[in-house]
Amino acid sequence: MEELYDRLEDITDEIIAIRRHLHMNPELSFEEVDTPNYIAAYHEKLGHEVRTGVGGRGVVATLRGNKKGRTVALRADFDALPIQEETNVPFKSKVDGVMHACGHDGHTATLLGLAKVLNSMQEELEGTVVFIHQHAEELPPGGAIAMIEDGCLDGVDVIFGTHLQSQLPLGEISCRSGPLMAAVDRFDIKIQGKGGHGAQPHETKDSIVIGGQLIESLQQIVSRRVNPLDSAVVSIGTFEAKNPFNIIADSATLSGTVRTFNERVQNLIENEIARITKGICLASDVDYVYRYTKGYPATVNHSEETKFVSELAKSVPGVRIVKKAEQQMVGEDFSYYLRQVKGTFFFTGARNLKWDESYPHHHPKFDIDERALVIAAKVLGKAAISYLQKDRH
Amino acid sequence: MEELYDRLEDITDEIIAIRRHLHMNPELSFEEVDTPNYIAAYHEKLGHEVRTGVGGRGVVATLRGNKKGRTVALRADFDALPIQEETNVPFKSKVDGVMHACGHDGHTATLLGLAKVLNSMQEELEGTVVFIHQHAEELPPGGAIAMIEDGCLDGVDVIFGTHLQSQLPLGEISCRSGPLMAAVDRFDIKIQGKGGHGAQPHETKDSIVIGGQLIESLQQIVSRRVNPLDSAVVSIGTFEAKNPFNIIADSATLSGTVRTFNERVQNLIENEIARITKGICLASDVDYVYRYTKGYPATVNHSEETKFVSELAKSVPGVRIVKKAEQQMVGEDFSYYLRQVKGTFFFTGARNLKWDESYPHHHPKFDIDERALVIAAKVLGKAAISYLQKDRH
Amino acid sequence: MEELYDRLEDITDEIIAIRRHLHMNPELSFEEVDTPNYIAAYHEKLGHEVRTGVGGRGVVATLRGNKKGRTVALRADFDALPIQEETNVPFKSKVDGVMHACGHDGHTATLLGLAKVLNSMQEELEGTVVFIHQHAEELPPGGAIAMIEDGCLDGVDVIFGTHLQSQLPLGEISCRSGPLMAAVDRFDIKIQGKGGHGAQPHETKDSIVIGGQLIESLQQIVSRRVNPLDSAVVSIGTFEAKNPFNIIADSATLSGTVRTFNERVQNLIENEIARITKGICLASDVDYVYRYTKGYPATVNHSEETKFVSELAKSVPGVRIVKKAEQQMVGEDFSYYLRQVKGTFFFTGARNLKWDESYPHHHPKFDIDERALVIAAKVLGKAAISYLQKDRH
Amino acid sequence: MEELYDRLEDITDEIIAIRRHLHMNPELSFEEVDTPNYIAAYHEKLGHEVRTGVGGRGVVATLRGNKKGRTVALRADFDALPIQEETNVPFKSKVDGVMHACGHDGHTATLLGLAKVLNSMQEELEGTVVFIHQHAEELPPGGAIAMIEDGCLDGVDVIFGTHLQSQLPLGEISCRSGPLMAAVDRFDIKIQGKGGHGAQPHETKDSIVIGGQLIESLQQIVSRRVNPLDSAVVSIGTFEAKNPFNIIADSATLSGTVRTFNERVQNLIENEIARITKGICLASDVDYVYRYTKGYPATVNHSEETKFVSELAKSVPGVRIVKKAEQQMVGEDFSYYLRQVKGTFFFTGARNLKWDESYPHHHPKFDIDERALVIAAKVLGKAAISYLQKDRH
Repeated sequence: MEELYDRLEDITDEIIAIRRHLHMNPELSFEEVDTPNYIAAYHEKLGHEVRTGVGGRGVVATLRGNKKGRTVALRADFDALPIQEETNVPFKSKVDGVMHACGHDGHTATLLGLAKVLNSMQEELEGTVVFIHQHAEELPPGGAIAMIEDGCLDGVDVIFGTHLQSQLPLGEISCRSGPLMAAVDRFDIKIQGKGGHGAQPHETKDSIVIGGQLIESLQQIVSRRVNPLDSAVVSIGTFEAKNPFNIIADSATLSGTVRTFNERVQNLIENEIARITKGICLASDVDYVYRYTKGYPATVNHSEETKFVSELAKSVPGVRIVKKAEQQMVGEDFSYYLRQVKGTFFFTGARNLKWDESYPHHHPKFDIDERALVIAAKVLGKAAISYLQKDRH
Repeated sequence: MEELYDRLEDITDEIIAIRRHLHMNPELSFEEVDTPNYIAAYHEKLGHEVRTGVGGRGVVATLRGNKKGRTVALRADFDALPIQEETNVPFKSKVDGVMHACGHDGHTATLLGLAKVLNSMQEELEGTVVFIHQHAEELPPGGAIAMIEDGCLDGVDVIFGTHLQSQLPLGEISCRSGPLMAAVDRFDIKIQGKGGHGAQPHETKDSIVIGGQLIESLQQIVSRRVNPLDSAVVSIGTFEAKNPFNIIADSATLSGTVRTFNERVQNLIENEIARITKGICLASDVDYVYRYTKGYPATVNHSEETKFVSELAKSVPGVRIVKKAEQQMVGEDFSYYLRQVKGTFFFTGARNLKWDESYPHHHPKFDIDERALVIAAKVLGKAAISYLQKDRH
Repeated sequence: MEELYDRLEDITDEIIAIRRHLHMNPELSFEEVDTPNYIAAYHEKLGHEVRTGVGGRGVVATLRGNKKGRTVALRADFDALPIQEETNVPFKSKVDGVMHACGHDGHTATLLGLAKVLNSMQEELEGTVVFIHQHAEELPPGGAIAMIEDGCLDGVDVIFGTHLQSQLPLGEISCRSGPLMAAVDRFDIKIQGKGGHGAQPHETKDSIVIGGQLIESLQQIVSRRVNPLDSAVVSIGTFEAKNPFNIIADSATLSGTVRTFNERVQNLIENEIARITKGICLASDVDYVYRYTKGYPATVNHSEETKFVSELAKSVPGVRIVKKAEQQMVGEDFSYYLRQVKGTFFFTGARNLKWDESYPHHHPKFDIDERALVIAAKVLGKAAISYLQKDRH
Repeated sequence: MEELYDRLEDITDEIIAIRRHLHMNPELSFEEVDTPNYIAAYHEKLGHEVRTGVGGRGVVATLRGNKKGRTVALRADFDALPIQEETNVPFKSKVDGVMHACGHDGHTATLLGLAKVLNSMQEELEGTVVFIHQHAEELPPGGAIAMIEDGCLDGVDVIFGTHLQSQLPLGEISCRSGPLMAAVDRFDIKIQGKGGHGAQPHETKDSIVIGGQLIESLQQIVSRRVNPLDSAVVSIGTFEAKNPFNIIADSATLSGTVRTFNERVQNLIENEIARITKGICLASDVDYVYRYTKGYPATVNHSEETKFVSELAKSVPGVRIVKKAEQQMVGEDFSYYLRQVKGTFFFTGARNLKWDESYPHHHPKFDIDERALVIAAKVLGKAAISYLQKDRH
């Protein structure tokens, strides 16, 4: 692997330059134009087979090694967020209200740099590497599902992906078998009461009071109905019933999110919200509209592939520690790939410990230690090469 | 009326002696034996027609005047309460745990004394006076309904009754047209959840949590569903789910009371409790048992008869003030008589203002100023005589 | 009074024309310009003393009778509402989004017509009539309080006012001694929690859940803490916490109204809301901002003056019934006048029973039977003249 | 180990006979007399050093091998439960209302049998085995803590223990590093409201309504304040406020349990219950009494010792599977030993898969497959012997 590591070191500046270029030119989910063009051009220049518009705006590039073998997919997402950047970096976003505040710029730079190096090692490559550049990870339904439907996993044996982590110290890699990131669902409830004058509550059906009751009742799902050994979240993000202070609300709307790690709990919660809503609305004799939308499923890493990456990462230069990742209640549409093929998704530490503070993902001051990019590239590259060589010699 | 007043004054001591005799020998609702015997003997001695066992344990005595005319009924109740007396009066209850703590002893003494005086005025009496001595006012279904079914109101044109009031100063009479005292209903709810170990809430249906929700939801009946211009109460007296601290309750029971002044509100509340219980139990997927028991209806005084008594009371010796009575959320089965015939029920002040404290009805230290008895007798007597004379001369 | 009645009949068309003119040219509270000018011009033409800009935008006109005597004030309000008219009347509002949807146009036309007639009877008038044309009744703090501070009640002995009622049949007048309309207060609560990602509730303080709890707890004020014999309302008109569905709210705001008929209950509720808010926020360890704003006090009619109007209204031509008014939980800043001088406020029926439907006040289809204007003028006129003559002959 | 296994097989009947003897003669926690006497006599007969009355009613026997070495402790508890047995076994409890419904009879028989066999192997034993027979595991504060204070762990290097499991199939052993069983705490809250008549809620402070609110609010601890990746339970077992249906409760009492796996969460919950109770009671202006009692801490297995047992169990005859144990929200005072010395606590399957149903622990029909006893003895025995030999050859 020395060759891989050395060549990645050699192009560190280029990788960082790519990341900065992307950082300055962020594009929102499902609105990406320049980014996929940039990516496609990069791969084309390397001579890779390139498909654009995959599943919408995705780009898939293929590098065939000189020797036949398995096919490994590596995935990086490339969309940005509707956030106004508040950092002072010289390569600050040039687009008002749009920012790479989750590190996808880094993912893409990592994968492009790695593509260049693997391309240079084409002679020895015993199989095929597919570079999946995915659009729209931030916004359900996400780009992954459409790219899969559009064939991005055809012929793929295994997939690897990583996420840079601003809270994980540089030099650390964290992996976990089984559920790593949560299924992310959404629910929307509209309570259709009957408005009227605040002085005459008996002529109305007070949507705010019913909504208050519903909020309280929903707490019981996690506190009473989910096995305490399972992890689950039911959070309400919006409660809105806006009227003059003296007018009773005709309707109230609630929207919230459900986070779970397995389908049994997910389905339980979906049913509980439905029944609680029905019961509370019956208690107050009001109509309601209820919609439950399943988003990304849980990201469930395959056991063997996770051990595989976890083991090989230990000896990658720059990696100080490989540890077991904490589960996360946030979602990631990498989950869809893992439902189709084996693979694993891991975290690459990108926190510079000398910084006073490391802002969380989706924060206007989010930033990463760029040295993490080459580390990520090394781990992914080693995983790809090793997997292609596995059990062959 | 001077004759009436004078003769009542003359037997004041006897009236008080009767009251004290009854006070020392209280009998519980539906268990009265000596008291009706005593009453019947008193009337029989006066030569009145007497029916005993009316509607169970009631006594009805009839005094026919020498002249023909209308029929006036006067009612006094005679049951006591399951309370241990804590006063220091020399005529304290001789029965452990039973006490005349609501003044019914005084009502009976008043009516017997009045009967004696009216009997002595039989010559001039232009009609008939029916003395209704009612058992079991304190305990639903009460004695009134059965006595009525047993004919105690047959031929009666009008009915008058009074309640001594330990909170109303001696010398005051208070009257009110329309609803004076509330309808008193009861509800019982059993939430049938599913018990289990406190460590495994997901295997149970937690009756206590559901009960807590139900308690909170029932508050909305009065706060939101009843017209704020109507008066109503929904109170829960019992919530019981007793288990070891670490065992989730299999079931929880609630019992409560509803107080209203009109049937529209009463029916509304009955329906609301039913629907709220249904909805809350549906929300938690549990069974339940619900029972709503209507007790005494509201005591609704007739307008003309109330004005009649209110006016004539003003000039009764010993009466300083006749005022409008406050409505009371407690009940009284005098209500049943007023649904059959015209009439009114009023309060006679029995509070001695020199006492440091005047204990409320149903209190172990309840007591009355006995001078109130003759005042009550005068007002009732004047009402009876005047009504029989009304529009005749 | 025949002269009064006849002359009012004679100018019926003029009164209606005035009302229609005002209806077509409505002006919002505190923004009235043309309306007070119109009113002032009308009185000036009659030769009355006129003060404009009283307490802001009010107009006060004075008619002195030829004989000395008491001073009677008559009040009409003249502001309109921010409502888009949806009727099909030919004199529909010409101002987009502004409508006389509460009948103040009728009040003003009534008072102007009456002023003209009383002016014509100046010879016989035994005292002074003050015409108080008040701006801004619809919007607290209202015009009354400022007009009083600016002297509109100086020298006034008694005040009368009426409100046309679209729900009360034409020909009916309703009066009530004591509290007729409610005190109207406002409360605003901001729960300052701590926002965060919906997947990590433990890092946040969930303002929506706390708000739900607060809503439920506030129900207990009316259900448990206010005497059931008192009338009171606590209604929440706004609950707002708007976020993406997966973000926990940093803060939530509630606004609501409190309606009461006496200060004891009003103060009780103010204290209860404060304490409940404090307790609930303490339970969740969050800060909050709480503001309670007292609006119009209860409109409490004086007993003698109410009987006075109630009696004299019975024989006014066009009045079929004078009845006891139901209390209303809505407010009216006529209350301020009644705190300074004796007087009464009553309702004049304006519902045409032949109409299929009579829309409530503040409804986009609100309308009145214009015959009510002359009836109102007759009652107010008779009240003024009679009051000036009272006890003098 | 063949010798160990063979000798244990040889005395299978004796082990079962011991278990049945104990099963027929159960004794409640802290009331054990015959059981410790029986145990002590057994060990004395083997010639072991025996201490009785350790920490109250515990028995500690010591077997010193011929060779010097480490000291291994093995623990079995021996108390029964206040449950009326409902099985049909021939060795059914002879004590009314008392039953070995948790398998402690089996634990003791296992340890006695093992003691006999190890005694017979004294020659080869390279160290000391301490047999800790613990009283009162079922009832906090439990026997463990007092036995430790009384020196039962003096000189001990490691401790092993097992629990027979009626839900785990015979032949399965389950182990887990870190927290295996929960900390079990108790809380008691008395809400001191103000009682009164149900018709006059405003004169009271309604403890039931406040209690209902408290129940609902406590749900938020698990739903909002505990990290969803941590496991925790807050369950209320008792809510009691018993009154006549029409009397508002003067006070209400709640008791419940808290289950957690680490002290951070445990302390968080203790604080949250305290603050929520304070806030809710403040909101209703009532006093309260709050008591939080920490019970057994979490049972946290040491990592190395757990791996040690887990590995060696795999080759024990009769063990088909060794798997990772699920965490359990119930508690076990073995936790105290693990805070003093290294060690591990594991589960031994005792479910006969041919039985139609296997009743849970603490059920009146609880039973075990007695073949599990010898399996447990083999694993514990192998653990003891292996540990003494470890790193020595």
